[in-house]
Amino acid sequence: MTTTSSRHVVLAARPQGLPKPGDFRIESAPVPELSPGQVLVRNLWMSVDPYMRGRMSDRKSYAPSFEVGKPMEGRAIGRVVRSTHPSLKEGAVVSSMLGWREYFVSSGEGLNPVDPSLPLAAYLGVLGIPGFTGWYGLKMIGKPKPGETLVVSGAAGATGSLVVQMGKIVGCRVVGTAGTDDKCAYLTKELGADAAINYKKAGDLLEALRPACPTGIDIYFENVGGPLLDAVLRLVNPHARIPLCGMISQYNLDPPDPGPRYLFSMIGNRVLMQGFIISDHLNLYPEFLAEVGGWLKSGRLKREETVVEGLENAPRAFLGLFSGENLGKMVVKLAPEST
Amino acid sequence: MTTTSSRHVVLAARPQGLPKPGDFRIESAPVPELSPGQVLVRNLWMSVDPYMRGRMSDRKSYAPSFEVGKPMEGRAIGRVVRSTHPSLKEGAVVSSMLGWREYFVSSGEGLNPVDPSLPLAAYLGVLGIPGFTGWYGLKMIGKPKPGETLVVSGAAGATGSLVVQMGKIVGCRVVGTAGTDDKCAYLTKELGADAAINYKKAGDLLEALRPACPTGIDIYFENVGGPLLDAVLRLVNPHARIPLCGMISQYNLDPPDPGPRYLFSMIGNRVLMQGFIISDHLNLYPEFLAEVGGWLKSGRLKREETVVEGLENAPRAFLGLFSGENLGKMVVKLAPEST
Repeated sequence: MTTTSSRHVVLAARPQGLPKPGDFRIESAPVPELSPGQVLVRNLWMSVDPYMRGRMSDRKSYAPSFEVGKPMEGRAIGRVVRSTHPSLKEGAVVSSMLGWREYFVSSGEGLNPVDPSLPLAAYLGVLGIPGFTGWYGLKMIGKPKPGETLVVSGAAGATGSLVVQMGKIVGCRVVGTAGTDDKCAYLTKELGADAAINYKKAGDLLEALRPACPTGIDIYFENVGGPLLDAVLRLVNPHARIPLCGMISQYNLDPPDPGPRYLFSMIGNRVLMQGFIISDHLNLYPEFLAEVGGWLKSGRLKREETVVEGLENAPRAFLGLFSGENLGKMVVKLAPEST
Repeated sequence: MTTTSSRHVVLAARPQGLPKPGDFRIESAPVPELSPGQVLVRNLWMSVDPYMRGRMSDRKSYAPSFEVGKPMEGRAIGRVVRSTHPSLKEGAVVSSMLGWREYFVSSGEGLNPVDPSLPLAAYLGVLGIPGFTGWYGLKMIGKPKPGETLVVSGAAGATGSLVVQMGKIVGCRVVGTAGTDDKCAYLTKELGADAAINYKKAGDLLEALRPACPTGIDIYFENVGGPLLDAVLRLVNPHARIPLCGMISQYNLDPPDPGPRYLFSMIGNRVLMQGFIISDHLNLYPEFLAEVGGWLKSGRLKREETVVEGLENAPRAFLGLFSGENLGKMVVKLAPEST
């Protein structure tokens, strides 16, 4: 297979509030010849993730800002289609941080071969950073014990859907929240959640949560931010744990919404709230992959992806995260896996 | 010395919002004869503390509610004035939870002899629960390191004034907040704080805090609740720690004020927020007393008490906590120490 040019997505402008299609621009560039020791990779799948919203702004953060006029970046799974590299052979499948583009040339640095016997798109979701994030946050901060009650916001999303299933594997009562009835049905019927709450229809979240958590809340896995946390704080049990993974509802707001009124419930109940960033813990990725990959292979774990096709639709896929258009992981298919 | 009756304070009514004098009532009762093995204690000092507000309501909490019409309770230091007890002799000084009264009869259970060579009122403050709370929260949750920046709210109060001084002993830059210029002067001139902010005059707390914390904030010791936390969250350094000790500004509000908008800063900065209750950690009291008592004896630590005299003024002393009338520990003197 040969190609002479590759399309990529550049950041056209820093978004004000909710990003819009005009903040992105599709460009194309010639694919350079390979120098000795290089590979040409064709991306098969690329990831769009909520954290990318932070990188689109110029606010100082843990991940560097995207530059206006430059290609965006993110996780991708691609196939080596041409190689002069000593070990990365043509046909190999690799993960990289060079998403948002169709092809790239690399010296191999930052590329990691993946086991092609597992579903490739899963490396962007349940076996990738979203899954790893859920696994770490629940296991290392949430520390779930059998019989405890775990509440998960954004439960039908990439991270939440793993957290829900892990909670059930551990033996917790699991309550998930999501923004459509279909997602709620998915949580209870497919993922085994004990209860699901459609936060858009629930009205008073405290009254919705109370019957779903008859023995209180021991762990709240926070993906979303906003008013649910306040309701949770009124139902927490002593020594509850709150891993803060994401607050997607706040990323496009400046200033963000006011926070929970019942924060002082954390004192009497000795609650732990801990923010975390998965890139601090990459040393645990092999342990994660062994455990969660094993569950996936054995069929104990379900995975779901919402697939958008074509690089030109990648901005739309990203924007869809903020309106909840994804069930499970939102991924963009850039080329057939048989490539 | 002989007495036939003793006055005590009963909870007359559960307060709505800010407690008022009518929520308390002074009663008196005859002092019973001693049965064999009992002591009669005359209280010298009693404590009024913000946490008592929670016990005045009937909301379920970590400490049991006071009953309407019954005597209130709290920490006190008293002298044994009559004894048929085998080891608690006349003249011994004991701490108890039987404050809010002039005299009580006891079998000795729950009484702890204290070393009378240290200032007795200090056992209600820097050497008592307020000091122990500050010591535990700063040392075990805040984990201060030399060169870090520590911000303390309610810094001129019973707990805060120890936290400020401990921060300096460890080698932190310490910034305290308080509600009067006199308290701020006390923080910088007496306690060694590097900066002090009068939150009532400061206007925009973020702009007040920023120049006081030129290298960001590593620890925020929360005594007060309310808007300062939000400003802190905009200045936190990675891996900051926030021990949640108290939120006195919220105890009389129903519903409480909205919380911080910038909670999601905890994610990118991997911030730990941990509520705690000192009664979970009483096993550490001897370690605390050795360390802080040592500082006090050697003059390394300053202490301050605001003294109100007479049981009839105990409700007023308690109410004064919510308007910040105390510098250091608010205590009520019930009898001369020479009693």
